[in-house]
Amino acid sequence: MRVFGKEQRTIWLENDRLFAIDQTRLPHAFERFEITGLKAACEAIRTMQVRGAPLIGVTAAFGVALGLRERPHALDAVCAELCATRPTAVNLRWAVERVRERVRPVQPSERSQAALALARDMAEEDVAACRRLAEVGLPLLRPRSGDLQRPVQVLTHCNAGWLAAIDWGTALAPVYLAAERGIAVHVWVDETRPRNQGASLTAWELSAAGIACTVVADNAGGHLMQRGEVDLCIVGTDRTTRNGDVCNKIGTYLKALAARDNEVPFYVALPTSSLDLSLATGREVPIEERSPDEVHMLGGSRITPEGVAARNPAFDVTPAALVTRLITERGLLAPGELAEAFDDRR
Amino acid sequence: MRVFGKEQRTIWLENDRLFAIDQTRLPHAFERFEITGLKAACEAIRTMQVRGAPLIGVTAAFGVALGLRERPHALDAVCAELCATRPTAVNLRWAVERVRERVRPVQPSERSQAALALARDMAEEDVAACRRLAEVGLPLLRPRSGDLQRPVQVLTHCNAGWLAAIDWGTALAPVYLAAERGIAVHVWVDETRPRNQGASLTAWELSAAGIACTVVADNAGGHLMQRGEVDLCIVGTDRTTRNGDVCNKIGTYLKALAARDNEVPFYVALPTSSLDLSLATGREVPIEERSPDEVHMLGGSRITPEGVAARNPAFDVTPAALVTRLITERGLLAPGELAEAFDDRR
Repeated sequence: MRVFGKEQRTIWLENDRLFAIDQTRLPHAFERFEITGLKAACEAIRTMQVRGAPLIGVTAAFGVALGLRERPHALDAVCAELCATRPTAVNLRWAVERVRERVRPVQPSERSQAALALARDMAEEDVAACRRLAEVGLPLLRPRSGDLQRPVQVLTHCNAGWLAAIDWGTALAPVYLAAERGIAVHVWVDETRPRNQGASLTAWELSAAGIACTVVADNAGGHLMQRGEVDLCIVGTDRTTRNGDVCNKIGTYLKALAARDNEVPFYVALPTSSLDLSLATGREVPIEERSPDEVHMLGGSRITPEGVAARNPAFDVTPAALVTRLITERGLLAPGELAEAFDDRR
Repeated sequence: MRVFGKEQRTIWLENDRLFAIDQTRLPHAFERFEITGLKAACEAIRTMQVRGAPLIGVTAAFGVALGLRERPHALDAVCAELCATRPTAVNLRWAVERVRERVRPVQPSERSQAALALARDMAEEDVAACRRLAEVGLPLLRPRSGDLQRPVQVLTHCNAGWLAAIDWGTALAPVYLAAERGIAVHVWVDETRPRNQGASLTAWELSAAGIACTVVADNAGGHLMQRGEVDLCIVGTDRTTRNGDVCNKIGTYLKALAARDNEVPFYVALPTSSLDLSLATGREVPIEERSPDEVHMLGGSRITPEGVAARNPAFDVTPAALVTRLITERGLLAPGELAEAFDDRR
C-alpha cells in the first residue's frame, strides 16, 4: 500500500533487521519499531503491536528465525513460546509448524537462516493470497445495474485490511481492488470495542487510501441494515473450521445475525492460512479471554466504577449457516463446499 | 434507592427548588445539580444530565412548571421548547402534553403551581408504575427448580435502572425486587457505546445496591448466549408502538436477534408512559441522531483518525416478533396482546 507516498508493508526486513508498523500507535502516529529477537516478537504479538491473523502468522515465522539465531538448538522451545502468545488465530500455529518442519532436518547452525528464508517466502505468499482474495471478491462489489448512482455500501467489523496482513488485507482486499477499478465504494466501519481496531485501524487505512468510510458504534450495524443502508458485509476470520463455522473478532456473530434478518449477504474473506480442517466445528476453537482492563478503560480513562468486574472474550463464532459465501483462494465457496474444495490440505 | 446510606431519587424538590443527580458525572462522582429554570431543564435533557425515558418525561413535566413561572402566558412556547430537546422517547411528549392539558384551563398566574403539583404526582406515579413492573417481572427471575445452586443470569443493555426513572427503574426493577427476596441474580451489563450508560450507570447502580454484575463490550452478548451464560434478557424501552415493536437504545435489536437464535427469552419492561398507541409500527418512530463526536471520542481521547466521518443513531427498533413478553403494569403481555390490553389509552 502507498502510505504518505511510499510503498509500505506491515512487516519487513532491512539489512537483515526486522521492522514492523506499531499498530498500537495508530491512528495518531505512524511509527515503525524493530523486532530485535524472540522475546520482542512474542511481546509484539501479545501486546498487539502486530495483530490480524495473517500478520500474526508471518510475524511468528520470523520469530522462529530470530529465536534460532539466539538458541540454535532450542527449536521446540522457541516454537512453544511463540505458540503461547495468542490462542485463537490458527495462522500462528500453522506458520510456526510450517517453519519447524522445514528447519528440523537442517543443521542447528543453519536453522535460523533457513527459517528466515521461509518466513520471507511466507510473507510473499501472503501478499499473493490476499491479492487473489481481492480478485475473487471483486464481483461481489460490482453495483447492480441501475444502481450506478450511489456507492456500494459495505459493512466491515474489526480490521481485516492490509494492516492485518502483509499487504492488501483479506476482507478489504476486494474493496481496494474495486477502488482501483473505479467502482465507488463506501465502507461502514464498526468501531470494534474493546480494542477499537475499526475506529483506529480500518478507518485509518481506508482514509489513507482515499476510500470513503464512516465509523459507527458496534451497536449501530443492525439499525443500518434495517434501514437498507448496507448492501453487503465482508469480514475476515481468525480460524474457520471444517464445517464453515467462522471464528472472528467478538461481535461478528451479531452482525451476521442482523445480515440474515435483513437479507443482506454476509461474506467472509478466508486466506488458506486461516483454515483449520482439523476442527469439525467452531465450538472447538479456543476463545482468547483478554484483560478486563480493556473493557474498563476507554482512551486512558476508566469508564466503569472501581471494584466492578468485567469479562473480555476477544472472539466469537459465526455459525456456517449465517455465512453467504466464503471468499477463498479457490473461489467463492458455500460453507458446505469448504472441506471438499480444500480436501488436499487436511 | 439507598445510596451511601441515604434514600435517594433521581429528581426531587427541596424547598420548592428542583434538584437532580448529574448523570454525566457518574460513576466517578455522585453529584446533584439544581435545575433553575426552563433553559436549564432543556439543557439537562439535551446533554443527558438526566436521561432514561421515564426520567426525561418527569423532568419535562417539572420543566413546564419552571417555564410557566418565568413566562405564565407562554404555555405553548414552553411546551414546544421542551419537546424539541430529544425526539425518540415518547415519555417526553406524553408528559408535556399531559401538563399542558391540565393547566390550559387554569388562570395564567396559577399555571406554574398547577403544573408543579401535577409534576409531583407524575413522579409518584412513576415510582408506583416501576414498583408494579418489579412485581410483574419477578416470577421471570425465579430460578428453575434444580438450578438453585447458581445465580440467575440476566443480560441488560443500556441503563433502565432507577437512574433512568425516579426510583426502582424499569428493566432492573424486577432484579432489585428479586435481590430483596433473597434470589441470587447476576447481571451482564452491556457497556452501551457510544455513551457508555451500561458501564458507567448500570454497573454503578447495581454495585451500589450490592447486586453482582459484570460489564462486557456490546460485542460480547451473542457469544455469552451461545455459551449458555445468559438465562434471560431484560431491557427498557423509549417507545413501544401499537404492534409491540420496541424502540430502545441502539444495539438492543442485535441482542434480541442473538436471544432468538439461542432460545434465550427476551423481555422488555414497558411502563405505560413509554407506550405510543398512535403509531402502528416501529418504522414510524423518529430515531435521534446524536453528535458524531460521541463516536470519535472515548473518555476524552479521540480514537478515530482526524477527518474521518462518523454516524451516531441513538436508538433502534426491535421487531415485536423478537420480544418474548412485555413486562407491563397490566401484567406480562405478548406483543400482539398490547393494543387490546391498553385499548382505553388510545
